[in-house]
Amino acid sequence: VLGIDPGLVDTGFGLLEAGPAEVAVLDVGVISTGRAAALEARLHVLHGTLQGIIAARAPALLVVEDLYAEYRFPRTALLMAHARGVIYLAARQFGVPIIALSPAEVKRAVTGNGAAAKGQVQLSIQTLLGLNEPPRPSHVADALGLAVTGLARTTGWRPGRSRR
Amino acid sequence: VLGIDPGLVDTGFGLLEAGPAEVAVLDVGVISTGRAAALEARLHVLHGTLQGIIAARAPALLVVEDLYAEYRFPRTALLMAHARGVIYLAARQFGVPIIALSPAEVKRAVTGNGAAAKGQVQLSIQTLLGLNEPPRPSHVADALGLAVTGLARTTGWRPGRSRR
Repeated sequence: VLGIDPGLVDTGFGLLEAGPAEVAVLDVGVISTGRAAALEARLHVLHGTLQGIIAARAPALLVVEDLYAEYRFPRTALLMAHARGVIYLAARQFGVPIIALSPAEVKRAVTGNGAAAKGQVQLSIQTLLGLNEPPRPSHVADALGLAVTGLARTTGWRPGRSRR
Repeated sequence: VLGIDPGLVDTGFGLLEAGPAEVAVLDVGVISTGRAAALEARLHVLHGTLQGIIAARAPALLVVEDLYAEYRFPRTALLMAHARGVIYLAARQFGVPIIALSPAEVKRAVTGNGAAAKGQVQLSIQTLLGLNEPPRPSHVADALGLAVTGLARTTGWRPGRSRR
């Protein structure tokens, strides 16, 4: 399951695989595009890099953050929607299903509380995935949260219950 | 010059070519995707069709409508931004420059009045391009307006003055 936290400057991703006993983090990273680059150039880098990751890793599912929480910053939301457009396109081009989850759904799945603080979410992700420290930067943490939640949905793994 | 009026259900396009004496309409149409189709499927159809048009026609410039007038309908604007994302991507993939124009800029270029009524814009486009009737549907009319304005910018053609 590949979680993606879309942005136009930095897009975080985290790739998880469910094994028989535990969930493994296969890859995490940030796709960065120049802040000064034109919109079309940034979308091209994002789409091309994502195509490479999907081709190499063949995830069973893509999970992105839903956009509807972003209305307070309409310009940011609109730019992120452009990024989401090429992410959805890449998913479809490789025939990988893609779902969108709200931040509240991720918080609930990861911590059991849909209104959990950001630090609590990161600590829970660290525990769930057996990481040495909380995931950073925040785009990667959010991408891992999306992937954990997507994995819980597709495999029946219940991170908020079985590991706490 | 290829004008594109992006939508997720229907995207209008209009392709213009400036000849020595007049501007020719090479192609107009609507790229329709099923209203019931998933977002990723609609973006895939839009991107693929647009790639085909760009590959076949090699326009010198793409012109799309700017989004910032759409804040009154944030959900619509967000969906349109996804469509714009794959349009910008297609432009970049073929190395075609792409610009965004506001409705007011188009109205001003086409009629000389940035606050012209829709019907007036369509009549002006009909006259400028020597069409037998006003362009329809409105997605095509808007796409032609964008292309006319883009052409005026790149060639120095001044539609609002020389033809009226």
